[in-house]
Amino acid sequence: MRIELLSIGDELLTGKTTNTNASFIANELLSKGMLLKQVVTTPDHKDTIVTEVKTGLSRSDVLILTGGLGPTGDDVTRQALCKFFDKSLQFNEEIAKDLQERFGKELASLEDQATVPSDVIIIRNKLGTAPGFIFERDGKAVIALPGVPSQMEQMLVDDVIPFLEKTYENSKKVFHRSLYFCQMNENQIDPLLRQMEKKYQGLEIGVCPSYGKLAVYLKGQNEKSLISSQKEIKEAFLTHCYSDSESKIQMALHQTLLEKGRTLSLAESCTGGKIASMITSLPEASLYFLGGVVAYSNLLKQKSLGVLESTLHQFGAVSQETVCEMAKGIEALTSADYSIAVSGVAGPSGGTKDKPVGTIWGAISQKDKILFSGKITAKGILHRTTLINYTANYLISSLWRWIHYNIPPFTHE
Amino acid sequence: MRIELLSIGDELLTGKTTNTNASFIANELLSKGMLLKQVVTTPDHKDTIVTEVKTGLSRSDVLILTGGLGPTGDDVTRQALCKFFDKSLQFNEEIAKDLQERFGKELASLEDQATVPSDVIIIRNKLGTAPGFIFERDGKAVIALPGVPSQMEQMLVDDVIPFLEKTYENSKKVFHRSLYFCQMNENQIDPLLRQMEKKYQGLEIGVCPSYGKLAVYLKGQNEKSLISSQKEIKEAFLTHCYSDSESKIQMALHQTLLEKGRTLSLAESCTGGKIASMITSLPEASLYFLGGVVAYSNLLKQKSLGVLESTLHQFGAVSQETVCEMAKGIEALTSADYSIAVSGVAGPSGGTKDKPVGTIWGAISQKDKILFSGKITAKGILHRTTLINYTANYLISSLWRWIHYNIPPFTHE
Repeated sequence: MRIELLSIGDELLTGKTTNTNASFIANELLSKGMLLKQVVTTPDHKDTIVTEVKTGLSRSDVLILTGGLGPTGDDVTRQALCKFFDKSLQFNEEIAKDLQERFGKELASLEDQATVPSDVIIIRNKLGTAPGFIFERDGKAVIALPGVPSQMEQMLVDDVIPFLEKTYENSKKVFHRSLYFCQMNENQIDPLLRQMEKKYQGLEIGVCPSYGKLAVYLKGQNEKSLISSQKEIKEAFLTHCYSDSESKIQMALHQTLLEKGRTLSLAESCTGGKIASMITSLPEASLYFLGGVVAYSNLLKQKSLGVLESTLHQFGAVSQETVCEMAKGIEALTSADYSIAVSGVAGPSGGTKDKPVGTIWGAISQKDKILFSGKITAKGILHRTTLINYTANYLISSLWRWIHYNIPPFTHE
Repeated sequence: MRIELLSIGDELLTGKTTNTNASFIANELLSKGMLLKQVVTTPDHKDTIVTEVKTGLSRSDVLILTGGLGPTGDDVTRQALCKFFDKSLQFNEEIAKDLQERFGKELASLEDQATVPSDVIIIRNKLGTAPGFIFERDGKAVIALPGVPSQMEQMLVDDVIPFLEKTYENSKKVFHRSLYFCQMNENQIDPLLRQMEKKYQGLEIGVCPSYGKLAVYLKGQNEKSLISSQKEIKEAFLTHCYSDSESKIQMALHQTLLEKGRTLSLAESCTGGKIASMITSLPEASLYFLGGVVAYSNLLKQKSLGVLESTLHQFGAVSQETVCEMAKGIEALTSADYSIAVSGVAGPSGGTKDKPVGTIWGAISQKDKILFSGKITAKGILHRTTLINYTANYLISSLWRWIHYNIPPFTHE
């Protein structure tokens, strides 16, 4: 089965929006053994859409469309598809009723959004107003989804992928495995990956570094080779491998804390709430995350966390002494099993000769004892949000490695 | 002049890499009055590249290619282009000398990377090893650039855009303007936008909603019309328009607080540090942001913010009474001019009949007085991170609208 994607939206061609939908769809398809063969991005223009649907269907079995299903004047995907498939648009009572129940009678776009092509499979949009559609012809399918990522994602996972799996169940599959590593770099793993590609014919490996994390992707039609190579690579760097399915490092810590029944609190300065935000983005985080203080000012470090004025005066806000007192302070407030504290110069301003941008101190405490404290060396990184992301990943992975493998942080930096 | 982009790379079709090159190129071109008409993403496959170059050139004047210029086996763009343009690959002494000077004699890929198509314009890669090329034929151009973002970006800005401006200097330019709105929806603005498109011929308008924000993009060849329509749209929804250049809503609040010399603190429960993280992602946030408490547990709400146990017991953590005490508590801790407090049920679990997922209370205080408190109604949104993002945008924009326009939040919800 050949699948391609047609991404519709002027905003994608003016650079105002990055096409994250394409990577989400490609990734989800691949997780089910289906490979996306091509992506075409085209403006909200009816005739262009019709042309591209025709071209796409001539070479592929399945064409997924995203975007242009909303109620405003620039949304023309429904019209284009009706033109191509020679269908008419009709008001659908059932969709209208559903929209009214969720958004109220006053929803201005109710009539528009409940007006859908006749004789197609309708995909319910549980999060928004624009339904999706599956048009079928001669064993081929055109699947139209909204462009809003959260809505598209849910409809893809809940409806589109099951439809594709059922309709094209006899297609050849491409298998895929991932591995996610922390606190190591590309050069350490590259020789092994080359070795694996030689050992297992047809195996393709990709590496993708991101803020101190490293993703390794394995792809091939031989599932056994894939599983063997994944196992070999994982075992070679076991204590760095935080997941074989999930790129979010906070998920590894999340699961470990839930399993062990331990609680966590945070005292963040330079990361400014990033670590808390990463952790609380996960459902059920409230089962172990007791809270944190974003101690951005010295006053809050003192009043909320009990950092001594003399410590701040003598050593500065960015110092080992301060982060240790911050960790103790948040532990005292929350009685958490583990606490993480961090303070640094994220830049672009605020750096000095002694403490240049990128100077970051961290501390991890267990109950009333400081387990570790040290410098976090983000070599060569001077960009503010990159530093924040790197530091958050480093501290989360450090606590995970300590609880999971008894490996102390900071020392190798 | 019609320009399109051919993005080459398997990693773009497995979802492991998002095509940020496409948005960078689109944005840079548009800033110089050139519009990207189409993007095609295709694998590292020689025959497919040849086919797509042929198709692209048949409908466009300029085809920009990214990716596939590196030294490894999967990089086949040079070969594909030589095949299409009937050129041969030749060793280039000058490039070899440059690579040797920068990377040393031991550079393993030196010979490969210095082997380039004959009779083309060569674009020097100042950051990496793979040079770029411009092939010209019949007044049309194919421009090949490496896929590594930093290298591609520099070559595009330094060489490709000047080449395009010079070669196609008589082409009609496309101008572009943006507007960013908060606390309004597509349907409110759509009638005006349709009116504008009728009033100003050739004006194209796009709307892009995102978590309670709304971006409006204007595009056209008549710069005067563009400026007039932008002004009219902005004035019609003035108190909702937080920027004409920057999509981040926290930037509007950031600038307002800096201008007025006012400080801010936060007491976040359900948003879990998201608001703090958004604000502290901006350089100089420390000039007004004093800090916050991520009061995820009831204990921390009490111990750190002074929320009364009786309040939590009688009204619950998600209540008007609790958020008001949270706002007062963080204000007492930080002495900030403004404080924002929020508590809600972000789900997916934790909802009850009285307080279903999506029930969110917010409060804004000024010095020791609660200015406003009320429910934040994220109609129809049940997805955890969507709710968190929507709530963060709503509260940030509420405080901005209050300081800027004296418009109270919550009342219209």
